[in-house]
Amino acid sequence: MADEALFQFLHSELIQYIYKSGANGETENGKNITKLEAMGFRVGQGLIERFTKETPRFKDELDVMKFICKDFWTCLFKKQIDNLRTNHQGIYVLQDNSFRLLSQLSAGKQYLEHAPKYLAFTCGLVRGGLSDLGLKSVVTAEVAGMPACKFQVMIQKV
Amino acid sequence: MADEALFQFLHSELIQYIYKSGANGETENGKNITKLEAMGFRVGQGLIERFTKETPRFKDELDVMKFICKDFWTCLFKKQIDNLRTNHQGIYVLQDNSFRLLSQLSAGKQYLEHAPKYLAFTCGLVRGGLSDLGLKSVVTAEVAGMPACKFQVMIQKV
Repeated sequence: MADEALFQFLHSELIQYIYKSGANGETENGKNITKLEAMGFRVGQGLIERFTKETPRFKDELDVMKFICKDFWTCLFKKQIDNLRTNHQGIYVLQDNSFRLLSQLSAGKQYLEHAPKYLAFTCGLVRGGLSDLGLKSVVTAEVAGMPACKFQVMIQKV
Repeated sequence: MADEALFQFLHSELIQYIYKSGANGETENGKNITKLEAMGFRVGQGLIERFTKETPRFKDELDVMKFICKDFWTCLFKKQIDNLRTNHQGIYVLQDNSFRLLSQLSAGKQYLEHAPKYLAFTCGLVRGGLSDLGLKSVVTAEVAGMPACKFQVMIQKV
């Protein structure tokens, strides 16, 4: 629990720092999200490198996605993704019914607008992890009702 | 291991981000160290709050310091402080013979100058933790030979 707390607190500090150091406004918000996502990307790459040292090779794309949903998610958030869906054409939807990094936020509707900044780093984590496993992707996230959220992964065919 | 890696990677990203977003120069370096320390302070406060919920009250200052060296350090870095010394007048020296956040740095002397930025956040963590336990302090750190380092805690009598 304490480990997780360390990451959660540091993650919140990071968001606050990035938002405080930049100006306000719509454009700036976009930039901050990009920064958080980029940091997540690099952390995701590093983690996967360490984490898959002794993992056998993956069979296919779906096998990689299952690894992200189970092992990677458990390592990050101490739980698995609750639901994985795919159209079998490179689009995957990962649903987490109680996403850890949202669980500190109040569930009121007025906080929904703040959700994206709590998701950007994790989108980056997933994109970075996949990139290190040879899959180029675009990862977005949306919150339906807190603290549940969905990550959509679109694999980019090269 | 993976948990620890998550924290370590995020910590490195944070340092890089803070150093990149500011200008260079001596003054700026000092400011960046202050920022990192302040972030550590808030994270340390948050962690101690969660972490001591079920801990019995501490007998005295030394008891608090032992808690920091054992439980708090283990929670943060998966190991205890290797050596604790005190002059019994409010000064404590905590020695960690293989400090986790330095272990990625190469041990060459040319990297010694970069060590302070890898220690600032942790100085803040300790100061924040102590503050939440009712002890106002000044915490500094020095590296003798990597990856060993010493944290000096000076308790401020109020």
